[in-house]
Amino acid sequence: MSAMRIAYQGEPGAFSEAAALKFRPDAEAVSCPQFEDVFEAVERGRATLGILPVENSIGGTIHRNYDLLIRHELRIVGEVELPVAHALLALPGTTLEQVKTIYSHPQALAQCDRFLRSMKGVEVVATYDTAGSAKLLKERALAQAAAIASARAAEVFELDVLRHGIQDYADNVTRFVVLGRLSTAEDARVHDADKTTIVFALPNEPGALFKALSVFALRGIDLTKLESRPIPGRPWEYLFYADLTIGSHELKCGRALTHLAEFATSLRTLGSYKGVVRAAK
Amino acid sequence: MSAMRIAYQGEPGAFSEAAALKFRPDAEAVSCPQFEDVFEAVERGRATLGILPVENSIGGTIHRNYDLLIRHELRIVGEVELPVAHALLALPGTTLEQVKTIYSHPQALAQCDRFLRSMKGVEVVATYDTAGSAKLLKERALAQAAAIASARAAEVFELDVLRHGIQDYADNVTRFVVLGRLSTAEDARVHDADKTTIVFALPNEPGALFKALSVFALRGIDLTKLESRPIPGRPWEYLFYADLTIGSHELKCGRALTHLAEFATSLRTLGSYKGVVRAAK
Repeated sequence: MSAMRIAYQGEPGAFSEAAALKFRPDAEAVSCPQFEDVFEAVERGRATLGILPVENSIGGTIHRNYDLLIRHELRIVGEVELPVAHALLALPGTTLEQVKTIYSHPQALAQCDRFLRSMKGVEVVATYDTAGSAKLLKERALAQAAAIASARAAEVFELDVLRHGIQDYADNVTRFVVLGRLSTAEDARVHDADKTTIVFALPNEPGALFKALSVFALRGIDLTKLESRPIPGRPWEYLFYADLTIGSHELKCGRALTHLAEFATSLRTLGSYKGVVRAAK
Repeated sequence: MSAMRIAYQGEPGAFSEAAALKFRPDAEAVSCPQFEDVFEAVERGRATLGILPVENSIGGTIHRNYDLLIRHELRIVGEVELPVAHALLALPGTTLEQVKTIYSHPQALAQCDRFLRSMKGVEVVATYDTAGSAKLLKERALAQAAAIASARAAEVFELDVLRHGIQDYADNVTRFVVLGRLSTAEDARVHDADKTTIVFALPNEPGALFKALSVFALRGIDLTKLESRPIPGRPWEYLFYADLTIGSHELKCGRALTHLAEFATSLRTLGSYKGVVRAAK
């Protein structure tokens, strides 16, 4: 029997690929050019699961991916946290002093801000992909250039690592969500769920968010995340994303959501799943 | 007497320049390469005020600029809202069919997603600036290329407008904050203030955000914005930014903030100012 296939965005060596294999070490990770293609691969059954970065401990939420979550009908069936270590890669033989241009994804650039400021006179070019930037160096044989990506991307594209660990903060972690179809076998695991992700909209009136949070606070349900996103075409109106520390099969979660639905203008459960257990600090 | 100087990020023709002139039509707008330079220009007195985009009705919050706000000691003294219309610019004589590469800032690219998807086979390159992308075309005489920027940038850099209004949503508005020194004459206007922006951190315990919102809800103070940002080096702990619809000189605002300070682990007022009056919908 073939291995489970997990679709991810990026080239081999991407952090998303590493996250897919951390979630299911025996899976086959399937490269997709864009995040939209990850959704499509799962929707059309070319992959069983998909993986999507949603938040980084330094750069913050990856809003575009939350926007994609509500445009599609997939559900969140799990999550993965992956420590992120950025390296500076270049064609073999290149020295740090020769580098005139550095390519990487804007999030990676932001996470290596201090290092980049130390590279005086170097042009910094934003791209759509960390591992893709490494591939670009290789394919176009770009001399006097470097890419910020994982050390594994250096192996994949036969590049040298000029510098390891160039991110500003050692404690740099990305959180990914795992996506599945509504009909997927993952549904069987829902009794394990201890985390639920919802999205809701509120009427534009004073105290609306306070009321929304009260449905959880009054039932002792904690939120680990609350994020707002503008609603396109309706300036300064917002959708809210929340992570609840409770499975949706629990009675008080159901009651809280029913209570919220009394006054929310929309409410959708994006998934209920087993959350990552965090080490005590 | 010389005009008031307002520092903005970008090249002439940038939306920030237009926002500066909307705030003070008689001001001299001073171009700065990076957002950090806008802060520095105001701090060192090369400009009286600075202007900073903080939120777009489609793309959402510009988090990096909130991060800069807390790293500096400037205060918010006003706000501006500016409708955003993106155009596709190219060297004179270029046709839409000839365009192989499109340059612009990631926020502008996101706002023109539908148009870009219609341009099959075209490479999309993220840059740090909309008007700067227009300048790049001109300076490097890039044929078969186009930039997404304002129609005014086409005038500044002598480019043709291939398409007007290519943003996905007609109702695309960017909100800017105006920054001044603590000692600036703008302080005299604080009695006008009807909006206050604060930033606070909370202990990592259940219901903390609910308690924080209750200090405002219980006093009938509305929030028009609530945004969370990760605290670098402390994974999954957050700073919260809030806009309150009340001036900080009002007694109940002072009481609410004193109440919040009882349990917030940090609290700072970023500014109290006269907010933009929005047209009724």
